[in-house]
Amino acid sequence: MDNNPDQKETQHAMQPEDTPELRALYKGFEEENLIPLWTQLGDLMPVHPKPKAVPHIWKWSKLLPLAEKSGDLVPVGRGGERRALGLANPGLGGNAYISPTLWAAIQYLGPKETAPEHRHSQNAFRFVIEGEGVWTVVNGDPVRMSRGDLLLTPGWCFHGHHNITDKPMAWIDGLDIPFSQQNDVGFFEFGDDAVTDYRTPEFSNGERLWCHPGLRPLSALQNTVSSPIGAYRWEFTNRALDEQLALEEEGHPVTAAPGHAAIRYVNPTTGGDVMPTIRCEFHRLRPGVETAVRREVGSNVYQVFEGRGAVVIDGVTHKLDLGDMFVIPSWVPWSLQSETQFDLFKFSDTPIMERLNFGRVQAEET
Amino acid sequence: MDNNPDQKETQHAMQPEDTPELRALYKGFEEENLIPLWTQLGDLMPVHPKPKAVPHIWKWSKLLPLAEKSGDLVPVGRGGERRALGLANPGLGGNAYISPTLWAAIQYLGPKETAPEHRHSQNAFRFVIEGEGVWTVVNGDPVRMSRGDLLLTPGWCFHGHHNITDKPMAWIDGLDIPFSQQNDVGFFEFGDDAVTDYRTPEFSNGERLWCHPGLRPLSALQNTVSSPIGAYRWEFTNRALDEQLALEEEGHPVTAAPGHAAIRYVNPTTGGDVMPTIRCEFHRLRPGVETAVRREVGSNVYQVFEGRGAVVIDGVTHKLDLGDMFVIPSWVPWSLQSETQFDLFKFSDTPIMERLNFGRVQAEET
Amino acid sequence: MDNNPDQKETQHAMQPEDTPELRALYKGFEEENLIPLWTQLGDLMPVHPKPKAVPHIWKWSKLLPLAEKSGDLVPVGRGGERRALGLANPGLGGNAYISPTLWAAIQYLGPKETAPEHRHSQNAFRFVIEGEGVWTVVNGDPVRMSRGDLLLTPGWCFHGHHNITDKPMAWIDGLDIPFSQQNDVGFFEFGDDAVTDYRTPEFSNGERLWCHPGLRPLSALQNTVSSPIGAYRWEFTNRALDEQLALEEEGHPVTAAPGHAAIRYVNPTTGGDVMPTIRCEFHRLRPGVETAVRREVGSNVYQVFEGRGAVVIDGVTHKLDLGDMFVIPSWVPWSLQSETQFDLFKFSDTPIMERLNFGRVQAEET
Amino acid sequence: MDNNPDQKETQHAMQPEDTPELRALYKGFEEENLIPLWTQLGDLMPVHPKPKAVPHIWKWSKLLPLAEKSGDLVPVGRGGERRALGLANPGLGGNAYISPTLWAAIQYLGPKETAPEHRHSQNAFRFVIEGEGVWTVVNGDPVRMSRGDLLLTPGWCFHGHHNITDKPMAWIDGLDIPFSQQNDVGFFEFGDDAVTDYRTPEFSNGERLWCHPGLRPLSALQNTVSSPIGAYRWEFTNRALDEQLALEEEGHPVTAAPGHAAIRYVNPTTGGDVMPTIRCEFHRLRPGVETAVRREVGSNVYQVFEGRGAVVIDGVTHKLDLGDMFVIPSWVPWSLQSETQFDLFKFSDTPIMERLNFGRVQAEET
Repeated sequence: MDNNPDQKETQHAMQPEDTPELRALYKGFEEENLIPLWTQLGDLMPVHPKPKAVPHIWKWSKLLPLAEKSGDLVPVGRGGERRALGLANPGLGGNAYISPTLWAAIQYLGPKETAPEHRHSQNAFRFVIEGEGVWTVVNGDPVRMSRGDLLLTPGWCFHGHHNITDKPMAWIDGLDIPFSQQNDVGFFEFGDDAVTDYRTPEFSNGERLWCHPGLRPLSALQNTVSSPIGAYRWEFTNRALDEQLALEEEGHPVTAAPGHAAIRYVNPTTGGDVMPTIRCEFHRLRPGVETAVRREVGSNVYQVFEGRGAVVIDGVTHKLDLGDMFVIPSWVPWSLQSETQFDLFKFSDTPIMERLNFGRVQAEET
Repeated sequence: MDNNPDQKETQHAMQPEDTPELRALYKGFEEENLIPLWTQLGDLMPVHPKPKAVPHIWKWSKLLPLAEKSGDLVPVGRGGERRALGLANPGLGGNAYISPTLWAAIQYLGPKETAPEHRHSQNAFRFVIEGEGVWTVVNGDPVRMSRGDLLLTPGWCFHGHHNITDKPMAWIDGLDIPFSQQNDVGFFEFGDDAVTDYRTPEFSNGERLWCHPGLRPLSALQNTVSSPIGAYRWEFTNRALDEQLALEEEGHPVTAAPGHAAIRYVNPTTGGDVMPTIRCEFHRLRPGVETAVRREVGSNVYQVFEGRGAVVIDGVTHKLDLGDMFVIPSWVPWSLQSETQFDLFKFSDTPIMERLNFGRVQAEET
Repeated sequence: MDNNPDQKETQHAMQPEDTPELRALYKGFEEENLIPLWTQLGDLMPVHPKPKAVPHIWKWSKLLPLAEKSGDLVPVGRGGERRALGLANPGLGGNAYISPTLWAAIQYLGPKETAPEHRHSQNAFRFVIEGEGVWTVVNGDPVRMSRGDLLLTPGWCFHGHHNITDKPMAWIDGLDIPFSQQNDVGFFEFGDDAVTDYRTPEFSNGERLWCHPGLRPLSALQNTVSSPIGAYRWEFTNRALDEQLALEEEGHPVTAAPGHAAIRYVNPTTGGDVMPTIRCEFHRLRPGVETAVRREVGSNVYQVFEGRGAVVIDGVTHKLDLGDMFVIPSWVPWSLQSETQFDLFKFSDTPIMERLNFGRVQAEET
Repeated sequence: MDNNPDQKETQHAMQPEDTPELRALYKGFEEENLIPLWTQLGDLMPVHPKPKAVPHIWKWSKLLPLAEKSGDLVPVGRGGERRALGLANPGLGGNAYISPTLWAAIQYLGPKETAPEHRHSQNAFRFVIEGEGVWTVVNGDPVRMSRGDLLLTPGWCFHGHHNITDKPMAWIDGLDIPFSQQNDVGFFEFGDDAVTDYRTPEFSNGERLWCHPGLRPLSALQNTVSSPIGAYRWEFTNRALDEQLALEEEGHPVTAAPGHAAIRYVNPTTGGDVMPTIRCEFHRLRPGVETAVRREVGSNVYQVFEGRGAVVIDGVTHKLDLGDMFVIPSWVPWSLQSETQFDLFKFSDTPIMERLNFGRVQAEET
């Protein structure tokens, strides 16, 4: 579908003449809980998405110290549940929403601390930018959290975290809290005040059962809504991206675009997204690559994992360093630029858009 | 999934002690666009859905006169596009939303009037409670609108309406405008200032091609996102419900529940919902039937088509007459009661909930 | 996929020299139940399908008298089960197979006769070329059989037939017996020696519940493997085809090809084929139409329902009259020609080919 | 569906009396290529599958020497294409079919030999019981063949093999040749007389792109009919089975049955079978395990990979050693017994049965 630039961007109607009768009519509307379409069509049905959410960059160099300070001042435990700082989109009026659909936060767990178990309808993941020493226990299965790992907590799975070391650890959380809150779909239940299993195995049961490429246990032939892989290890992600770039060098068109390797984390029972509302990907640019300018329906959130580069949003260039996070609201044009090899973790609400047939992408020719 | 009644309904955490240091920390959060989870968990993640939307009944005896009065005072034409009065849920702060996801309106077209063509990403339908004489032209195909008919305008189809008679006509519109606005997915384009085809055939091309039960044109073997049937005629709906009740009387368990016939309008290319975000159904109760108390994730909107009865929402009984409309927000318990044979049209956002795996239903044993 | 005309059609290998040692080796193969590939590759893996089945036409003017004569001489009842004459493809060595996958037969039921109930894994349908007065009882639901109707008996449904009139009736049966026999998938069970319900309703329960276009009973939201519509009535088929031709005349490209209307009978719960192994369609040509020459993987069987025309198979023209049946084996080229308006019922094994990804079609440009 | 033991196993009908008239009728049938159902119902539609194929065991100790001898006497090259010995089921009348649907063969490639490239509709795999040194080149991608590996050649992929060593190598091939031949679906094309790429990489491009658990290349989001993984390495299979047994020991119910680990090889783009007609699995029994007696619709073929045990088919016990192969025809009861740890590779035609809804399994309670 093309996007017509000539389309008048406003739909301000000629409004009816202001008469006593019209005022009486409007008063009648109010009494009966009615609102006329003709006074607000342009807002309700814009020519293209006009998000209230704005593009924004959060610097890791600011986030981390505030998280550390919270570690000193704010206890973690039953009730508050998590020491998490939600990234609040400046356009969304003081809500802890990074976009209308997504929540992103930095979570911080001090030495020997435990975040108690609970479960909720909201789908969640964690991605680890640095550090180690925490295990997240998901439905009783302890999962090690290490640098570069993506850890899943699909909706309605019990989960808690504990830190076995003398050092704190910080990571990012992604959830569909705003979508869930806006659409009244969420349930929540407390679990154990501690975690149910304090063991610290190198690999979770889920990994041991499922992380064998192309091999499916005969005891698990029923497809699952979310991925049964609780931990996507950095070692695999890194190797997959390296291989794409090596294959490209050997002449095989296997990268997302020239110099741009990328993988999507998927549910091995279906080959589809890891959770029904959240897409997770990892992108690697060779040095000196600039991606095509692109805009798409839905919200994209990135975190820099390694290297240096920039994002150009709506024509404005923002330098990026390790750990920096940014959000691209719906239909805002953007591209990436790399100085060094540039690694980025990405998540988005695209599964929502695609499953409801609202997806649309517009990309500059390359 | 069970719903635990013993679950404490509040999650008010012990908050950290208010100190100058904490205030400094909170100020730092504000500067960096961060919001802590621990101060607002209960709102973000309630124990069960706690919709701001409230149950509400709109009386047809109030709606129709206001629509008629609008016909006198407000022109219809390019810009305002439609003479439609949105049912505004009293809990949703002055927005023309009947629920967080759905728009419902009464639309009114005067004698010989034309509502000009446009198209939008939002999915739309019309349901006709009374009257006749209007044709809606969808992607160039004129579709007669008559009492009891359901007319579809799936996302991105051009459409306009025109009234060929000397009498006005009113009907209801249902759309996913709030969902679309909230999630920044909508595109809009003007079309012809009139309608592109003023012919008034009894049956649209879509019906002539598709309304033969179990027969699919060989020229249309590709499945479509939304139903290719633009008009679901009352004659068929009525007969389907009559047959269910007759079969039930003959001893066959084909009704939704004893004395309760019901059909879902579906896309014949898939057997699934008519549009990706909106479910449409029609329900018929024999006299003296009371349905099981039920609550479900998502929003349901009903309009009384024929007969008398009541809806019991959260324990409160509301009498219902012809044309009355009501909304049941997410997870609010409700049931229907019939005095006479009682016919109701229903639409809901359940496809959203089911496609994203948030669906949950709790029904009293019957 | 292209079909390479230059490909050498034989794969006769140079065979190893005939020596005593080779003979000893071949004897060893025989003793150990081994057969070398190199002696028979061309037969096992031909360049394109080389069916043993041959194209063949059965004249209704011959079939019907033989069926009538059977009615005089052969009783119908438990054991033989059905007075059915299988159309035996002359290329298939004396088996009652019209193709490697399909069985087609003319079945004949005398005045007041009953064919007893049984069920089997094999999927079955009946199509009625003429006559009336028989009801087939499928899982206890009596289904009227009339001219132009398609009646389904999906695998493992009990079924029997009875004739309420003083006149005999003949019709055709289609099943996947050869496929089932060849692949060892069939189960069979006797049921009642009579039929379980001798009532003669105009419409079956299945029709009363399901034959409302685009309307699905709320009590039947689970998709079914085969269509729940037991009877596809001629009235609907005829109207659907008429409408396609009328729409074509009005300028809409809704026919399968110019002058060629066609419908596929489908399962309303999925929009797909009526049964997992058999596709059923109905085709109508305007007078003087010639279809594109076409060949496809799989077997097609046609019966002339009305009008006069011809089929050109592999370059040879065969005149066709009412009731005539013919089979086109896999990859044999063919086309249809009409003199008058020409109506044909068709069935095929294409769902097998498509579900297993063996489908291939080659059609002359038109 | 239950299997009724009381069902009379014969359906011999009372046949009509032999009279001159009946003989004339039967002669008329013959002339018109008709065969009555009543004379052959029991064969066409048995009470349960009565395969002509019989259970049979082929001893590796016999197979391998014959293959080696073929290496001496029979050249490999264009025309004969492959030095492969098909396992011919003794019940299938001299055809090189191990079952009505499946082909199984031992293939043998001498030192430095090349088997030329071709492609065909038939789906193929190879499984390596011992040896190394051969690369199979699939659509230009060289794939190493080593002990314990499963190598795929899905339908219509070009493929050839070459041996880089001074030693011969033997392996087994599995294809759907009989199904393809019986149903006239096969196409065949010669490719290069050599192989198109003589390089011998440790890992194929397909593996480098796809063998990262749960990670999907962004350049390959379209699902594929068959698995894009050309090589399932023994290292992964072995580890997956070890982990299942270890997890079982730790108390997790992740094995197929107690003491019985098993994986299915799957297509990572869908989670389903590797090819549309063939299922591949690997089973590992702890010492002293006996599986439940089971029968199922369709054909199963096993090869012993490691260890000692037995198969009990229809009550008869057959000892099994390394490399031994056996076939279980449709609906024949069987079970496995292990002496040592017992590893078996298995393939079957179950995808055909399941996709066409003919699947049925009956298993003894355990």
